[in-house]
Amino acid sequence: MYNCGHEATVEIDQIALPPDEMPTKWYNIVPDIPGGLPPPKEPDDGESRMASLQKRLVAECLKQEGSTESWIDIPEGIRELYVHAGRPRPLYRARRLEQRLGLTKARIYYKREDLSPTGSHKVNTAIAQAYYAANEGKKTLVTETGAGQWGTALSYAASLLGLKTVVFWVRAVYDWKAERRTLMQLYGAKVYASPSGETAFGRKLLAEDPRHPGSLGIAVSEGLEYTDLGPDRVYCLGSVLNHVLIHQSIIGLESIKQFELVGDSPDLVVGCLGGGSNFGGVALPFMGEVLRGKRECRFLAAQSESAPNLVKGEYRYDFGDTAGHTPLLMMYTLGHETSMKPIKSDGLRYHAAAPIISALRNKGYVDAVAYPNDEVAVFEAAKMFLETEGWLVAGESAHAVRAAIDQAKEAESNREEKCILANISGHGFLDLDAYREKIKLE
Amino acid sequence: MYNCGHEATVEIDQIALPPDEMPTKWYNIVPDIPGGLPPPKEPDDGESRMASLQKRLVAECLKQEGSTESWIDIPEGIRELYVHAGRPRPLYRARRLEQRLGLTKARIYYKREDLSPTGSHKVNTAIAQAYYAANEGKKTLVTETGAGQWGTALSYAASLLGLKTVVFWVRAVYDWKAERRTLMQLYGAKVYASPSGETAFGRKLLAEDPRHPGSLGIAVSEGLEYTDLGPDRVYCLGSVLNHVLIHQSIIGLESIKQFELVGDSPDLVVGCLGGGSNFGGVALPFMGEVLRGKRECRFLAAQSESAPNLVKGEYRYDFGDTAGHTPLLMMYTLGHETSMKPIKSDGLRYHAAAPIISALRNKGYVDAVAYPNDEVAVFEAAKMFLETEGWLVAGESAHAVRAAIDQAKEAESNREEKCILANISGHGFLDLDAYREKIKLE
Repeated sequence: MYNCGHEATVEIDQIALPPDEMPTKWYNIVPDIPGGLPPPKEPDDGESRMASLQKRLVAECLKQEGSTESWIDIPEGIRELYVHAGRPRPLYRARRLEQRLGLTKARIYYKREDLSPTGSHKVNTAIAQAYYAANEGKKTLVTETGAGQWGTALSYAASLLGLKTVVFWVRAVYDWKAERRTLMQLYGAKVYASPSGETAFGRKLLAEDPRHPGSLGIAVSEGLEYTDLGPDRVYCLGSVLNHVLIHQSIIGLESIKQFELVGDSPDLVVGCLGGGSNFGGVALPFMGEVLRGKRECRFLAAQSESAPNLVKGEYRYDFGDTAGHTPLLMMYTLGHETSMKPIKSDGLRYHAAAPIISALRNKGYVDAVAYPNDEVAVFEAAKMFLETEGWLVAGESAHAVRAAIDQAKEAESNREEKCILANISGHGFLDLDAYREKIKLE
Repeated sequence: MYNCGHEATVEIDQIALPPDEMPTKWYNIVPDIPGGLPPPKEPDDGESRMASLQKRLVAECLKQEGSTESWIDIPEGIRELYVHAGRPRPLYRARRLEQRLGLTKARIYYKREDLSPTGSHKVNTAIAQAYYAANEGKKTLVTETGAGQWGTALSYAASLLGLKTVVFWVRAVYDWKAERRTLMQLYGAKVYASPSGETAFGRKLLAEDPRHPGSLGIAVSEGLEYTDLGPDRVYCLGSVLNHVLIHQSIIGLESIKQFELVGDSPDLVVGCLGGGSNFGGVALPFMGEVLRGKRECRFLAAQSESAPNLVKGEYRYDFGDTAGHTPLLMMYTLGHETSMKPIKSDGLRYHAAAPIISALRNKGYVDAVAYPNDEVAVFEAAKMFLETEGWLVAGESAHAVRAAIDQAKEAESNREEKCILANISGHGFLDLDAYREKIKLE
């Protein structure tokens, strides 16, 4: 750690992993889940959601969705795109933050997914889905987006692979996130405010209310319908499903190698959680080793009280979208029609947690905490992180930073040795309006 | 390069340099300049600008300002802060951009200074100046900023070292760059719109015009005056001066090592140029090897027609600021009182080029080009770069990208082997409004 005026040996806080040491396989935790993963179910109305999804999704992703293999090869084409996107991403030891907190026993590390081209971890699955879609001869990727992170990541990946992206974006967000919309359009995406005039479902809602604010569920419904309206279109999902969590496992797999490089090991892995793709990405490779008896570690999901699905949700079968286009999935859910208070950290606003995360929560492997949805406490943690570590994090990631700080302080007050890993899911350069709103500045 | 459906061996476009291979010395080109560097001069009004500057600047920086040593040790404390800030930064081969341009002979590489914590190369000197100021017992760093990049970088460095920053910001920019202002304030900086009520000079201008838009020169003048008004204050400059270019040499020194790793070598190094710190940073280490007969390479500065100091300026003695607080410096200048048309790429809007760059231009080692100040051509180049390489660059950097593309196309049409290095000085996440204004989107 830096001491003014004192020339200590250089402390390397940045733990880099060379590109040629990037993992070559993704990890799939499904076969290691005690008792297995409850399968998706058809609702009683007789209409098969599986069949309707199967014809709309990327075939290779569907295959991975049902895979019982623990390790899945990352094709060389995807590895090349990962490296081009800046992977492996550095792991950092938060020495300056530790000093500010006066820690002597607890240690904090963080993983830098904020270094992604579009500013979030979503590129890890966007690249994989776009790559497979291109190989399957698809021309247009269709999706929905809430916070905008997923739509931006998919637009980026499609652009690198010469594909077109069509994004249905919750109108309430579309209207105030001009910057992110511009970024998607620069990547060549066609962005529609949802509800839109492009689908029967959208037109029906607009007829009822021309200024309908929309919702993530409505955007999903429009996207699925739009996929059927033209050739070579495929629907892509950015969270919740098994194949998405498989692709995101690259985060935790790199982190395991990086901890080995410095001879340390986390006792607690923290990630923010909306649907579960970023939490799963960092946590599941470590959790797999716990399940196989190779390490001891706890896992903590940091949520918002706007959508505390793991904290207050029921573990039951529910739809993944408002309109009920998806099969029923066994999840901790607040109910697919529950309305959730708008927050700046939009990415955490989802009614249920991924089936994989939910099953592991149900077996006692996942702890969860929800922070007040005024978001003041989380942005204050992000400000302390900025002042000490220097990096501007997204509002969603601020929840993980808050949780890491709280856990470290608690361990310290118990005089407990504790090594904490927090995932920084994205940067906050497009969230400065939120910082200005939440934090009192001179 | 990626081929759909074809599993080629992974092409590594990201050329990483391990943290422990980061250079341990900065390069100072002054002793290698043919004919030497014309010294600063006092104006005829009898008032010594040297004396006034000497009592205001960081002592170690002043020592470096007059240094005739070719190599200057980077203190371990600064190396540690560089690594923490993400150095070494990757060098990239722009294979996707090359493919889009249909290049078969010309090759393009780019250096990633956009990965800096505050989004620009300015942190390289900000960290050094803040470190030395802390060692000298200073408590407050005072500066001016135009585009906001320098003020943000200094606020970041001061924050990591427990110092306070006071920024005088050209009012015209201050008013529309709320995001960047917020970022400086989050780092704990006190930011004043200039002209301000904090100095006699500012109060005088405000008395004449309460809505005075200010200028970079006025902000410098206020900063220098403010520095004298309190204890333990020191003035920091982000460009033009020799010590700033010395600190920035880390960019080119890393790039030289990275080219060696892939067994390639640039025939042309391109950087955008306002005052010269980013251009000097990437170019001078290569140019030093040219001057010492160790390599052949040309150097191209990409400017805006708003401030084409190297293209249309006169090589003569001029002040560095509007109010004439600085000594006279031998520079290519448009005149220190010239008004320059506002552009989105603010960082390129400065009336003169650094004495070091100017002297080397005068000896024929630096070529320069100025792009139209409607900025359409440069933002279109940035869009092509985004679509192919995936990275969102700052408006200033877009000028370097434009120049690299133009030079590559020209070489290709001449069937000429040419290896081009362009420096990406910063990212564009806070410039999306400019992209929206300059580029027609669906």
